[in-house]
Amino acid sequence: MSVTAASGFVASGVHAGLRRSAPDLAIVRSVTPATGAAMFTANRMQAAPVVISKEHLELAEPQAVVINSGSANAATGLRGELDARATAAEAARVLDLAVEEILVLSTGVIGKRLALDKVLPALRAAANSLSETGGADAAEAILTTDTHAKQAVAGGPSFTVGGMAKGSGMIHPNLATMLAVVTTDYPLGPHEAQEFLRAAVEESFNAISVDGECSTNDTVVLLANGASGTTRSVKSDSAFDDCLRAVCADLAGQIVADGEGATFTAEISVSGAASDPEARAIARRIATSPLVKTALFGRDANWGRVLAAAGSAPYNGGYAQLDPGSVTLDLAGVRVVDGGAPQDVEPELVGAGCTIVLDLAIGDGSASYLTSDLSYDYVRINAEYRS
Amino acid sequence: MSVTAASGFVASGVHAGLRRSAPDLAIVRSVTPATGAAMFTANRMQAAPVVISKEHLELAEPQAVVINSGSANAATGLRGELDARATAAEAARVLDLAVEEILVLSTGVIGKRLALDKVLPALRAAANSLSETGGADAAEAILTTDTHAKQAVAGGPSFTVGGMAKGSGMIHPNLATMLAVVTTDYPLGPHEAQEFLRAAVEESFNAISVDGECSTNDTVVLLANGASGTTRSVKSDSAFDDCLRAVCADLAGQIVADGEGATFTAEISVSGAASDPEARAIARRIATSPLVKTALFGRDANWGRVLAAAGSAPYNGGYAQLDPGSVTLDLAGVRVVDGGAPQDVEPELVGAGCTIVLDLAIGDGSASYLTSDLSYDYVRINAEYRS
Repeated sequence: MSVTAASGFVASGVHAGLRRSAPDLAIVRSVTPATGAAMFTANRMQAAPVVISKEHLELAEPQAVVINSGSANAATGLRGELDARATAAEAARVLDLAVEEILVLSTGVIGKRLALDKVLPALRAAANSLSETGGADAAEAILTTDTHAKQAVAGGPSFTVGGMAKGSGMIHPNLATMLAVVTTDYPLGPHEAQEFLRAAVEESFNAISVDGECSTNDTVVLLANGASGTTRSVKSDSAFDDCLRAVCADLAGQIVADGEGATFTAEISVSGAASDPEARAIARRIATSPLVKTALFGRDANWGRVLAAAGSAPYNGGYAQLDPGSVTLDLAGVRVVDGGAPQDVEPELVGAGCTIVLDLAIGDGSASYLTSDLSYDYVRINAEYRS
Repeated sequence: MSVTAASGFVASGVHAGLRRSAPDLAIVRSVTPATGAAMFTANRMQAAPVVISKEHLELAEPQAVVINSGSANAATGLRGELDARATAAEAARVLDLAVEEILVLSTGVIGKRLALDKVLPALRAAANSLSETGGADAAEAILTTDTHAKQAVAGGPSFTVGGMAKGSGMIHPNLATMLAVVTTDYPLGPHEAQEFLRAAVEESFNAISVDGECSTNDTVVLLANGASGTTRSVKSDSAFDDCLRAVCADLAGQIVADGEGATFTAEISVSGAASDPEARAIARRIATSPLVKTALFGRDANWGRVLAAAGSAPYNGGYAQLDPGSVTLDLAGVRVVDGGAPQDVEPELVGAGCTIVLDLAIGDGSASYLTSDLSYDYVRINAEYRS
């Protein structure tokens, strides 16, 4: 299953020594010529592997992805770039590919130099252990503070889409500290690969938040090798699109549920906004509000905090439009504000999560967001994280 | 001292019963005709007292301020507006002022109706106990999760500026859940009052962050009654300006130091940005980053998180300009990144706080921000807060 579910893909995960005892180096490759696409973080402090992978994508179609955990190789200066280039070069050598056919992804501590003396020898071991059943090992090797591996598969009538992801802290729009590799044996040209990926990412990885952070390294890669032998049609394209969205949404949902210290999740829906972007700004603001998130942790149906957050959603240098007199809010299925008037009710927050449904009654804009609560464990994990 | 330090001001703080055992209703008034100005939250979910006070300011010069804690009277619909009007009307009656000369300020739980049956009778008691030594009582009565009262005084050659503030959670730009009343016996016209106040607020209350929240109720009021008998000059205006800024900065600093659960503060300075607004966006982003704030709580000199935050500062629909190859960062007085190159050093975070000094080497933009750490206690206070 996972990233090797589709025909013609092999993967492996080994221990290079960047993390104390966990596997920390993964390779995913297509055994037949593939096309590919990727989306990268919008953070201006782009990590060296992001810079290098973007270069490679301009020169060639990607055939293999090399991922290390334990070091983000970000804020490492010129040396960091050389380290990322050396990693790609050695991977090309052991995989018998051109260097520009390699994408390099890193995750872990920012500002720490990549230990090449550990990575380079381990690349040979990782190449030697590539197999069609190596997806689970690869999914393990890319984790950092995640508590478990994240994998997803969706099958079309005659093709397969599979993927793996990591991410639990710093999850936010624009792919914050989130790595994902999705593979398919459906045939795609490079241009289509980019278009399909962009659409699927927009409604999955770009619509989740754990702590509002946006990382230096976030990358989502799609490799397509056509090994299923399917021929494309409008109908099969649509089926592929559904499968790709399903895999991305599944992985994104797993990331939120595994948010650092998360004990509760909330599905936020905003409608009636002046525009879709304004709805999105409001949904994101609610999703990232520390006061909303601590209330969720306390299972406190403190809907006033939801409205206070909604009223201060940054948009176009000001705040997104909202009329306090016309908002309607349902929390956990209970109407707490109806056309601006608070209702004398007390919703109960129980189980694994709740819904937050806000109607602004201004226009037709709508958007959704997934978020998690802010717990003691989030603070503990991040006050301690840098071992 | 405090809000009654200047000549001609009286204040009181009493227990109306909105909070269990603490004083919760304050009045500040000038005994001689005063001019005044106020700045309000930019949150679109403006609380009823904000709406009413804005109306009153358009009609008359404010002579008295009535403040309650225990209920924000926000998201309370039309009823909330009527409750705020009833409060102002009763205050006008017991103070023998016109209703439009009263400003009403509220702080506390959002979405809870103001208990008029407690507020209205208590207004008479508060009016009866107004005195020149009542500043400390008033400063106590406006607190919510604050651990202590916040007061400040600065004296010019022949006039005095005094103030009080509340705020510890939800502190952020645009005056997030922060109330402050500043009084002076310096003579000002209404237009000058607004201009002096705006400038002082911009570099004090609008440059602090505890948790990035922006509240529904934030208000800063300045009352000036000229009771010192000073005549204005360019020189005395400048001295007054210095005093007003000092009082505002003092109160803002007290708010950050009393941030919910705060154990450590950071003074953030950004220079070399493309513009002042971009510097401000970057400083604010660092100041509100959960990952930076949890690192501060852990006393972990995790400067990579500072740069990751700096690289993702929302500005004009994108991110503020930053070149990873040219940034220089000093943390706690130690240079950790020099012109893009990380240095092999490990600053120690000890004492009550540290400095974070970032030079982008792009342009001339600069800005400063004060912030606090994110601790277990922040989560505890806000997961429990709604008693």
